[in-house]
Amino acid sequence: MAKPLNLGMIGYGFMGRAHTNGYKRVNDFFPELQYRPVLKAACARNGEKIKEFADQWGYESTETDWRKLIERKDIDAIDICTPNNTHAEIAIAAAKAGKMILCEKPLAMNAEEGLTMVEAVEKHKVINTVWYNYRRIPAVTLAKQLIDEGKLGRIFHYRANFLQDWTISADLPQGGQGLWRLDVAAAGSGVSGDLLAHCIDTAIWLNGSIKDLSAMTETFIKERKHNLTGKVEKVGIDDACTFMCRFGNGSLGLFESTRYARGHKALYTFEINGEHASIKWDLHDLHRLQWFDHRVQGNLRAWSSIHVTDGDHPYMGKWWVPGLAIGYEHSFVHQVADFLKNLEKGQSTQPDFKSAYETQQVLDAILASAKNGQWLNVGK
Amino acid sequence: MAKPLNLGMIGYGFMGRAHTNGYKRVNDFFPELQYRPVLKAACARNGEKIKEFADQWGYESTETDWRKLIERKDIDAIDICTPNNTHAEIAIAAAKAGKMILCEKPLAMNAEEGLTMVEAVEKHKVINTVWYNYRRIPAVTLAKQLIDEGKLGRIFHYRANFLQDWTISADLPQGGQGLWRLDVAAAGSGVSGDLLAHCIDTAIWLNGSIKDLSAMTETFIKERKHNLTGKVEKVGIDDACTFMCRFGNGSLGLFESTRYARGHKALYTFEINGEHASIKWDLHDLHRLQWFDHRVQGNLRAWSSIHVTDGDHPYMGKWWVPGLAIGYEHSFVHQVADFLKNLEKGQSTQPDFKSAYETQQVLDAILASAKNGQWLNVGK
Amino acid sequence: MAKPLNLGMIGYGFMGRAHTNGYKRVNDFFPELQYRPVLKAACARNGEKIKEFADQWGYESTETDWRKLIERKDIDAIDICTPNNTHAEIAIAAAKAGKMILCEKPLAMNAEEGLTMVEAVEKHKVINTVWYNYRRIPAVTLAKQLIDEGKLGRIFHYRANFLQDWTISADLPQGGQGLWRLDVAAAGSGVSGDLLAHCIDTAIWLNGSIKDLSAMTETFIKERKHNLTGKVEKVGIDDACTFMCRFGNGSLGLFESTRYARGHKALYTFEINGEHASIKWDLHDLHRLQWFDHRVQGNLRAWSSIHVTDGDHPYMGKWWVPGLAIGYEHSFVHQVADFLKNLEKGQSTQPDFKSAYETQQVLDAILASAKNGQWLNVGK
Amino acid sequence: MAKPLNLGMIGYGFMGRAHTNGYKRVNDFFPELQYRPVLKAACARNGEKIKEFADQWGYESTETDWRKLIERKDIDAIDICTPNNTHAEIAIAAAKAGKMILCEKPLAMNAEEGLTMVEAVEKHKVINTVWYNYRRIPAVTLAKQLIDEGKLGRIFHYRANFLQDWTISADLPQGGQGLWRLDVAAAGSGVSGDLLAHCIDTAIWLNGSIKDLSAMTETFIKERKHNLTGKVEKVGIDDACTFMCRFGNGSLGLFESTRYARGHKALYTFEINGEHASIKWDLHDLHRLQWFDHRVQGNLRAWSSIHVTDGDHPYMGKWWVPGLAIGYEHSFVHQVADFLKNLEKGQSTQPDFKSAYETQQVLDAILASAKNGQWLNVGK
Repeated sequence: MAKPLNLGMIGYGFMGRAHTNGYKRVNDFFPELQYRPVLKAACARNGEKIKEFADQWGYESTETDWRKLIERKDIDAIDICTPNNTHAEIAIAAAKAGKMILCEKPLAMNAEEGLTMVEAVEKHKVINTVWYNYRRIPAVTLAKQLIDEGKLGRIFHYRANFLQDWTISADLPQGGQGLWRLDVAAAGSGVSGDLLAHCIDTAIWLNGSIKDLSAMTETFIKERKHNLTGKVEKVGIDDACTFMCRFGNGSLGLFESTRYARGHKALYTFEINGEHASIKWDLHDLHRLQWFDHRVQGNLRAWSSIHVTDGDHPYMGKWWVPGLAIGYEHSFVHQVADFLKNLEKGQSTQPDFKSAYETQQVLDAILASAKNGQWLNVGK
Repeated sequence: MAKPLNLGMIGYGFMGRAHTNGYKRVNDFFPELQYRPVLKAACARNGEKIKEFADQWGYESTETDWRKLIERKDIDAIDICTPNNTHAEIAIAAAKAGKMILCEKPLAMNAEEGLTMVEAVEKHKVINTVWYNYRRIPAVTLAKQLIDEGKLGRIFHYRANFLQDWTISADLPQGGQGLWRLDVAAAGSGVSGDLLAHCIDTAIWLNGSIKDLSAMTETFIKERKHNLTGKVEKVGIDDACTFMCRFGNGSLGLFESTRYARGHKALYTFEINGEHASIKWDLHDLHRLQWFDHRVQGNLRAWSSIHVTDGDHPYMGKWWVPGLAIGYEHSFVHQVADFLKNLEKGQSTQPDFKSAYETQQVLDAILASAKNGQWLNVGK
Repeated sequence: MAKPLNLGMIGYGFMGRAHTNGYKRVNDFFPELQYRPVLKAACARNGEKIKEFADQWGYESTETDWRKLIERKDIDAIDICTPNNTHAEIAIAAAKAGKMILCEKPLAMNAEEGLTMVEAVEKHKVINTVWYNYRRIPAVTLAKQLIDEGKLGRIFHYRANFLQDWTISADLPQGGQGLWRLDVAAAGSGVSGDLLAHCIDTAIWLNGSIKDLSAMTETFIKERKHNLTGKVEKVGIDDACTFMCRFGNGSLGLFESTRYARGHKALYTFEINGEHASIKWDLHDLHRLQWFDHRVQGNLRAWSSIHVTDGDHPYMGKWWVPGLAIGYEHSFVHQVADFLKNLEKGQSTQPDFKSAYETQQVLDAILASAKNGQWLNVGK
Repeated sequence: MAKPLNLGMIGYGFMGRAHTNGYKRVNDFFPELQYRPVLKAACARNGEKIKEFADQWGYESTETDWRKLIERKDIDAIDICTPNNTHAEIAIAAAKAGKMILCEKPLAMNAEEGLTMVEAVEKHKVINTVWYNYRRIPAVTLAKQLIDEGKLGRIFHYRANFLQDWTISADLPQGGQGLWRLDVAAAGSGVSGDLLAHCIDTAIWLNGSIKDLSAMTETFIKERKHNLTGKVEKVGIDDACTFMCRFGNGSLGLFESTRYARGHKALYTFEINGEHASIKWDLHDLHRLQWFDHRVQGNLRAWSSIHVTDGDHPYMGKWWVPGLAIGYEHSFVHQVADFLKNLEKGQSTQPDFKSAYETQQVLDAILASAKNGQWLNVGK
C-alpha cells in the first residue's frame, strides 16, 4: 500500500485546480508508485473561497494563513500556487520548516530573489520542484529523448513562440482576482515571466544554456484601470517580448511571446534544426510531434507528424490505447508521478529550484537588454 | 452535499478503466451535480484480477458473480463492461432487480437480443444509457448544435470511417483476454459491431434514421490461432465492413471500417455536407472541428479548423482555459455528468437502450446485406 | 532540331486551353524531345469563337468542320476536346484518316461505343492516348513508383473520392456552352463519367483491375431549365455516385463522387492501404504525397507529408528548385512530353484507348448496378 | 493586335528561365494586354551556353557583351538576371541608353549603390521594376487586399521566416556557376540579400516602413573551397540572419532567414496579427492563405485555410477553374502582366527601383547592426 504524502496547497486558482487534479489522478494510472498524495489542507486569505475550493476538490481542511499551514506537523509538502510576488517568502519559510516544496513557475520575481530560494532549499535540504509542466507533455519528452540519442547532430537553430490574444481589449483591467498577471507589482513582468519562462525552461532542457541575448519589449496598451485601486494606472508589464540569443552549443535562438497575436490562445511552439534532423511541436496540437530526418531515402524525405499516443511513447503506456489522445492536464499528472518516483529515492524533480533559477537569470537579462538596447551575457 | 449513486462495475478491461475514471473525476469538474458516484463494488469471474483492479481504482468491495452483485441492496446502478455476448443476460437481470444500467456498446449481439433488453428496461422502468461516448467529445457535440440550429440546410451527404491497423499481423490470435474482439462467439461481429457501431450511433444522432443500405464485408485473415482452444480456427468476424445507404432525410451515406488500414490507429472520421455548410471531424485531432460556411464573403470562403477549447464550446467551460485541449477520456466524464444531471430529473440519458437498438437494427441489415448482396431496408 | 508534330485541335473550352498550354510549354522544359508540337489548326462549329481562340493561343488556321480538319494533309494528330457524345465519331474518322489521336476523357458514352474506338485505332494502327492527366501529377506518379517497388506489400484497401459543389444551386441550367456536363444527351452520365472516371483510371493503374461492384446514384435536383430548349426538363445525369468493389488483387475499393459536397471544389483524393505502408493524396494540395511506413522505428512511425518538389521526384527535375511547387496544368505538359517521347519509339502513350475502355466498362457496371441494385461483374 | 515589346535578357540561370517563361506565357492568359513580349536577344559572356539557352527558349539572337546588347536599337527593355555585383553597372548603362529595365533582386550590393541606380532611372525617365515576385502569388496579393480594406485593424505583430537547408554540407564549395550565392564578392551578402530581401520587400508592402532594428548573423561553416580559385577560403557571407524591428506603424517585427534549417527547402512564411484579424502564408503551400477573423461568432472563430483558386481571387480568373492550383512560376507571369499593363499607361511597376532601394537600406542596417550589436535606425 502506498505511503501518504500529505499536501498543503496554497492558492485555489487555475493552477490550484490543475495541480490538485494531478494529485488525485496519479495513483490510478501509475499504480506502481510507493507514495500517494493526500489532500490535507488548502490555504488562501479568503476563508469562504478556500472552503468552497476544498469542498469541491476534497481537501480535508483549510487555512487562511499560509504561515500556519507551514507550521502544521501533518503536512509533508507545500504547493505554492499564489501570485509570483509571494513565492520567495513562502518557499523560504517552508524550507526552514523542512517541508518539501512544489512551486508554481516562474520561480521568483527576479534572479536575485530566486537565488535566495535556491539557497534556502539547499541549506535545509528539502526536496523541491518547479511546475514547468510542458516538459512532461509526451511529445515534448519524446523530443528530449531524440535529442539525447544524438539523432539531430550539431544544432544550428532553436526557435520558440508563445502567442496569446486575451489582452487585446483596452477595456480589460489590470490587477485583482484572475488578472494579477497584468499587474507588475504582483507578476513582476508580463509575458516574459508568464510565457517566455516556459519557452526558456524547455529550451535550456533541450538545447543547453543561453549565453547572451538581445531583447525587445513593448507595452501596447499603456494605461488600464486597476481593479484594486479603481483608478486608471500606467501598465508596468511587457505585453510582448522578443529576444535573439546564442546558446552555449553555438546554435542561434529566437524567442517571442505576446498576448496580442489575434487568433492564438495558447500557441506555444518550438522548433529545433540540427544537422541531420529537425523537430517541431506546438501546444495547440500537443499530441503530435513534427519530425524530419534527412537520413531517409531522398524521394521519401518529409516532415512527419508523429501521433504521440502509442505505448512506446513517453508516459503513454499508462493511459489508453494507440490513437487516443490525452490533454493538457496530463502534464501535471506526469510531473506528480515523477515527483513521487524521485521521492522514493530522496531526490528532487527537475526542473528544481536551481534549474528554474537559470531561467530567472535569462529573464533578468531579457528585461535589462530590452531597456538598454544592448546584447547582454546571461548571469553576469 | 451531493447524494451518493452507488455503482457496481462488471468487467475491468479498457472500458472498465475508462468508465471508472469518469466516475471519479466528474464531481471535481461539475460541482453543481446533485449526485456523486460511489465505487461500491467491482465484479469479475477472476477474483484475483478484480481485487487488483478494485485496489488500484478504489472500489470498496469485489464480487466474482455478477448475479450476486445485482442482488446487493447497496448498489443503485450496474455498469456492464463485459464482452458483447453477456450484455443481454446481465442487463435483463439488472433491470428485473430494479437497477439503473450503464451498458457498454454495442448494446447486444443483434437486434433481436437488443429488443429484449429494451423491453426489460421499459417494463421495469429503470434508467439506462449506452456508452456511445463519442457523442460527448466537445467538437462532436458542437457539430450537433450547428446542425440543430439549421446552419447546414438540406443535407446531401454523410460519410464516416473508422480505420485501425492492429490486426494486420497473421500471428495475432483470436479470443481470450484482450482479444475477445476477434472471437465471433464473444463479439458477435468484427469491425461492424466494434467500430461501425460508433459511426452509426453518431450518424443517426446527427442526421436521422438510415432507411436502406447495401454492405460488403471481408475477412482478410481467414484462420487464426484461438487462445482458448489453442487451435488454429476459422475466423468468424468481419475484418472490414463497408456500406452505402440512404437516410430518411434523402441524403446519401457512405461508411467504412477496418482493422487493416495501415497507419491509422483509431481514425474515426465523419463529414456531413449540407446546402449551406459542411462539417468534418476526426478522432486523431478530436479537439478540432472543421467547418465550411458558404455564406461567408466569396474570397474568404474556406474550411476553418475550430480549436474547440473555448468556454463557449460544449463542456469546455468546465475544464481549463482557451487553447488547452482535453483528451479522449473526457468524453466518459461528460457522459457521467449528463447521466447524473438527467438522474436528477429521473430520466435516462441518450443514447439509451432504445436508441442503441436502432443502431443494432442497422448492424443486422449490414451483415445480412453483406451476405446476400442485396439492398435491404433497416428494421424490416 | 526537333521535328514538327502538326496538331489539329477540335474544341476550345477548358480542356482546349489546358492541352494547348501543354503543347506550347513542353519543349521549353523538355529540351531533349525530338518532336515539337505545332499548332496547325483549331476547329469548332462556331467560326467566330474558334477564330478568337486561335488568335489568342497562336493556332495557324481554323476550321469549322471537323471532317475537313481530319482530311487535311498537313495535320499529323487530332486532339478531341469536344463533348463526350462526339468522341467516337471523330476518333473513328481520324483513325481511318491515319491521324494520331489524343482524346479527352472519358473515352466514350459507354463501353460498347468505346470498343468501336479501340477497334478503329487498332485496325488503322494509329498512335493514341486519352487525357487522364492526373496520372502525371508528380505526387501521383511517385505513388505509382512506390507501389511498383513493392513498398506497400499486400494491398487491403483502396478508396477514392472526387468531391465538388458547383451544381448545388437549383437555378443552374443544364445544357449549352459550358454546361453540357449536366445534359445527359451530351455527357452520357453525370459525375460518374466526369469525375469517377478519373478515380477509376488512377485506381486501375495503381491497384489493378476491378472485378465486381455495387453502386448507388442520386439526382438531387430532379428538374432544371435546359439552355438549348429554354424549357424546364428532367435531369438525366447522376448528381452523385458511389460504389463499393473488389479488385482482382483481393483488396476492397470504395469510391464516391458528387457535385453536392459543399466546400470542395475539385477534391480528388485517394488512399491505398498495404500491409507495410499506406499512401494518400489529394488534388487540393497536389504537390504533397502522404506516406506512412510501418517499417520505421516504433516511436517515430508517422504519416509524413512529402513535398514533391525535389529533383529526384518524377518530372520535377525539369522545373524549378526544391521547395517550389508546380500546379494543375503541368500534368498536361507531362502527358505531352511522354506522348512525344513515346512517339520517338512509335508507341502510344498510356492510358491509351484500350486502357480507357476498361474504365468505360467499370462505368457501365456502375450505372447498371445503380439501376438494378445488384452486385455486377465488370465487363460481363 | 498586341504591340511588340522587344526584350534583351542578360543571364541564363534559374531566374533567366523563370522570367523567360513569364514572357512566353503572359499573352495566352492575359489576352487583353496591348503589349506582347518578343524574345529578341539573350546575352552572356559564354557564347556557347547562351546560344544553347537561346535555342531552347526561342530567343532570336545572342550577344556575349551586355554593352553591345544595350546599344542595339531593336531592344526596348533589358532584363538583368546576373549576379548581384553586376546589377548597378548594367542598369545604369541601360538607363542611359533609354531602355526599360527589369532587374532581378536584390537591386544592388548595398544601399549606396542602389541609390545610384534609382538616380539613373529617374534621370533618364526609364520604366523599371525589380523582380520581388512573391508579391504576385495570388494568396499574397489577397493578403494585401485584406489589409488595404482595413480588415485587420491596428497591427501589433509582423513576423517572417525564410528557411532553407541546402548549404549544411561543409563539402559544398563557394563561388562559380550556380554557387555564386555563397561568394561574398558576387553576392554581397548571404541569406540577408538572398532571402531576407524577399521578406523585407513583402513586409514593407504589407505593413509599411521599418524604423529601427537589431540584428544577428552567423556563418556556421567558416571556410569552404572556392570554385574559381580552387583553394579553401574564408566564407564571407552570412549563413543565417535574424532581426527584431519596429515598424513605423508601431507594430513589432521579427525576421529570420537561414540555409541551415534542416527539412525546409524554400519555406518563406509570414504572419501578421491585427486587432481584429490575422493572416499567415507560406511558400510551401503557396495556394493557401490562413485567415483568422475575431468578428466571427464566438463558437465558430477559427483559423481558416483559404484555397486561393477561385475566380474572385487575385489573378485566378485568368487560369483554370476553382480548386485547381497554380505554382511558383505564375508569380513571374503576373509580374510581366502587370508590367505590360502599366506600360500602357507609361508607368513603372511596383516594386520599382525606388521601392527596392528601401529594402536595400534595411539590409544595410541589418549587416551593420549584426556587426556592432546595436539598434540602428534604417536609412540613417
